[in-house]
Amino acid sequence: MSLSTNTSNDTPVALTGDRPTGPLHLGHLVGSLRSRIRYQEEHCQQFILLADLQAMTDNADDPAKVARNTIDVAIDYLAVGIDPQKSTICVQSHIPELCELTTYFLNLVTVARLERNPTVKQEIKQRGFERNIPVGFLVYPVSQAADITAFQATLVPVGDDQLPMIEQTNEIVRRFNRTYGGHALREAKAVVPKVARLPGIDGKAKMSSSLGNAISLSASPDEIRRGVERMYTDPGHLRVVDPGCVEGNVVFTYLDAFEEDTAVVDDLKAHYRRGGLADRTLKQMLDDRLQCTLAPIRQRRREIAKDRDYVKDVLAAGTRHAREVATHTLDDVRRAIGLVAPSS
Amino acid sequence: MSLSTNTSNDTPVALTGDRPTGPLHLGHLVGSLRSRIRYQEEHCQQFILLADLQAMTDNADDPAKVARNTIDVAIDYLAVGIDPQKSTICVQSHIPELCELTTYFLNLVTVARLERNPTVKQEIKQRGFERNIPVGFLVYPVSQAADITAFQATLVPVGDDQLPMIEQTNEIVRRFNRTYGGHALREAKAVVPKVARLPGIDGKAKMSSSLGNAISLSASPDEIRRGVERMYTDPGHLRVVDPGCVEGNVVFTYLDAFEEDTAVVDDLKAHYRRGGLADRTLKQMLDDRLQCTLAPIRQRRREIAKDRDYVKDVLAAGTRHAREVATHTLDDVRRAIGLVAPSS
Repeated sequence: MSLSTNTSNDTPVALTGDRPTGPLHLGHLVGSLRSRIRYQEEHCQQFILLADLQAMTDNADDPAKVARNTIDVAIDYLAVGIDPQKSTICVQSHIPELCELTTYFLNLVTVARLERNPTVKQEIKQRGFERNIPVGFLVYPVSQAADITAFQATLVPVGDDQLPMIEQTNEIVRRFNRTYGGHALREAKAVVPKVARLPGIDGKAKMSSSLGNAISLSASPDEIRRGVERMYTDPGHLRVVDPGCVEGNVVFTYLDAFEEDTAVVDDLKAHYRRGGLADRTLKQMLDDRLQCTLAPIRQRRREIAKDRDYVKDVLAAGTRHAREVATHTLDDVRRAIGLVAPSS
Repeated sequence: MSLSTNTSNDTPVALTGDRPTGPLHLGHLVGSLRSRIRYQEEHCQQFILLADLQAMTDNADDPAKVARNTIDVAIDYLAVGIDPQKSTICVQSHIPELCELTTYFLNLVTVARLERNPTVKQEIKQRGFERNIPVGFLVYPVSQAADITAFQATLVPVGDDQLPMIEQTNEIVRRFNRTYGGHALREAKAVVPKVARLPGIDGKAKMSSSLGNAISLSASPDEIRRGVERMYTDPGHLRVVDPGCVEGNVVFTYLDAFEEDTAVVDDLKAHYRRGGLADRTLKQMLDDRLQCTLAPIRQRRREIAKDRDYVKDVLAAGTRHAREVATHTLDDVRRAIGLVAPSS
C-alpha cells in the first residue's frame, strides 16, 4: 500500500462504501463509482468500505448472500478502475475497532433520537419491520458514525436521502469532544453529487437489484439488450412520425449519463421532439453505447474473478491499512475517555 | 495464570462481575463475594468481570468515576480473598471481542423485545430516563449476553431481578445456533443464591452506595460504628423492658449474616422478644462483629492499595486470559456466520 497511516489535517479523506447485498449496477457507476475514481486521482485519501456488518443488520438470516456479494462487489470495484494502490478497499467485519467505537458512541445517543432519524424511519417502513426492527438496524446510524470517524473522514459523498446520517455523525462528534475534551474526532462534510440519480429502467426513481429494474455491471450483452428493450420511453409516442417527449424518457436520461458526446445527444433529442425518430432506433443507439461502456468492465471482471486470491489479497491489504488508521483513532478515543488500562 | 484456555464441557464455568460505579459494600460480601470465594475453591472455572463498559451506559459523562472504581473494586476483590490464581479478574473495556460479539447479537434481537425486558423497564424508571434512554443502556442486555457467551459461562449467579437477563441471553443463543447452525454458543443457567439480599441500614430492600444506606468494605471503624448506630430496628421498641420485634429488624438480619455462631444469635433474638435487651447493647454486639469482619479486609485493602502496579498486573493477566477465551468463542462465531475473511 502506498498510503500512509497518518493523515495530515490538510489532506481530505473521503469515505464511501456499499452494503454488499447485490451486484453493483449502472446506477452505482453513475452515482458513486465514477466520483470515487475521480477522488483517487485527486489529492485525496479514500477509504471504500465493504459494509458487510451493516448488510447483516437486515440480512442476519442470510450471511452467505452477504459474503458472496462482498467478493462480487470488490471485483466490481477493481473492474471499473478503483485502484487499490490509491484507494483503500476494506471489509467492515474485519475491522473490530469499528465495533468498539460504536459501543462508546451508543452511550451518547438516545433511543428517541435514533427513532426520529428520517432515513431510518423511511427504511423501516420500506422493509415492513414495524415493531420487529432488529436492534442492529435501528442503531446502524451510530455504527456508520463509527465508520466515518474511525477513518477521520472529512468528505462523505452521499445521496441527499443520507444527509441525516452525516448530521447524526456530527452530533456524536460534538457530544464526544464536549464530554471527553480534546479533539479526538473530526466532523465530516457530506458531499451530495451533482449528477442526478439514475432511474431504474422502468422509470422508477431508484435503480435497485431487488426492484428488478437494474442493469448490473456484470450484465451479459444479452441482458443489456433486454434491459434496454424494456426501458420506459414516452408512452404517448405511438407512431414514429409523432413528436416524442424527452423529459422523463429513461432512454434519454441514460444517454445523458453514458454518451460523452453531448452534441450527439442534443441532436437526437431535437429529432425525437420533432418526430420521425423511432424508439427502436433510439434504443439501438443506447444499447450500442452501453455495450461499449460495459464490455471492458465485463472483460476485466472476468479476468479478476479468475484470481480470487488476488481479490482477497487486495481486501487483506486494504483492511490491514484501514485497521491501522482505525486503531490510531481508537487509541485517541480511549485516551480521551480514560477508562482504566490494565498494564500489559 | 494456572487456568487453561480450553474449557472442557464438563467443568462448570461461572461468570460474575460488577459495574464499577461505587465501592463494594457488605451487601456484595453477603450476596456475591462469599459465593465467588466458594466457587474458586470448588471444581469450577470463574470469570469475574469488571464491567466498566456497562457502567458507562449510564455514566457516559463520568468515565473518571468508572475508572477510579474499576481499580477500587479490584482491590476489594483481592482484599476479600478472590485469588487471581484461581479466578480470572478481567476488565470489560479491554476485551474488544465482547463488542464484536454484541454487534452480531444486535441483529438477532428486536427493539420491541428489548423494551419488554422487565429489568430494563424497571431500571429505566428508576433512573428517570423516560424517552432519553441512552441507546447503550437499552441494549445492555445484549452486551451482557455477549459477556456470558464469550466466556462459555454455564453458571451465572444473579439476583432474582436479573433472571430476565439470562432468559434474553439464552434466547439469543438459541436463535444464533438455529440461524447459523452448529453449536458455537452454550446456554447458561442462572443460579439464584439462597442467601437473602442484605437490606440497607435504613431497612430498605437494597443496600446501595448511591442510596447512602451502605457500609462499604473499606469503611473505617468509625464509619462502621456510625452505620450501625443509624441502623433501623423495631420502631415500637421504645423502652428496654418492652418486648421487641426481630422480623424486619435490620440489626438481626445483619447478625444472621455475619455472626457465625447461630446459637448466640438465637439467644439474642429470644431475649429481644421477651424484652430487656436494649437496642444499644444489641448494636454494640453487631458493631463488634462487623469490626471483626471488616478489620482484616481493611488491612489487606490498605496493603494492596499501596501496590497499584500489582493490581494492574493482576488485571492485565486476567484480561489477557479472558481475551484468549473470548477470541476462541469469536472465532467459532465468525466461522458459523461465514462472512468473507480477507486473506492475511
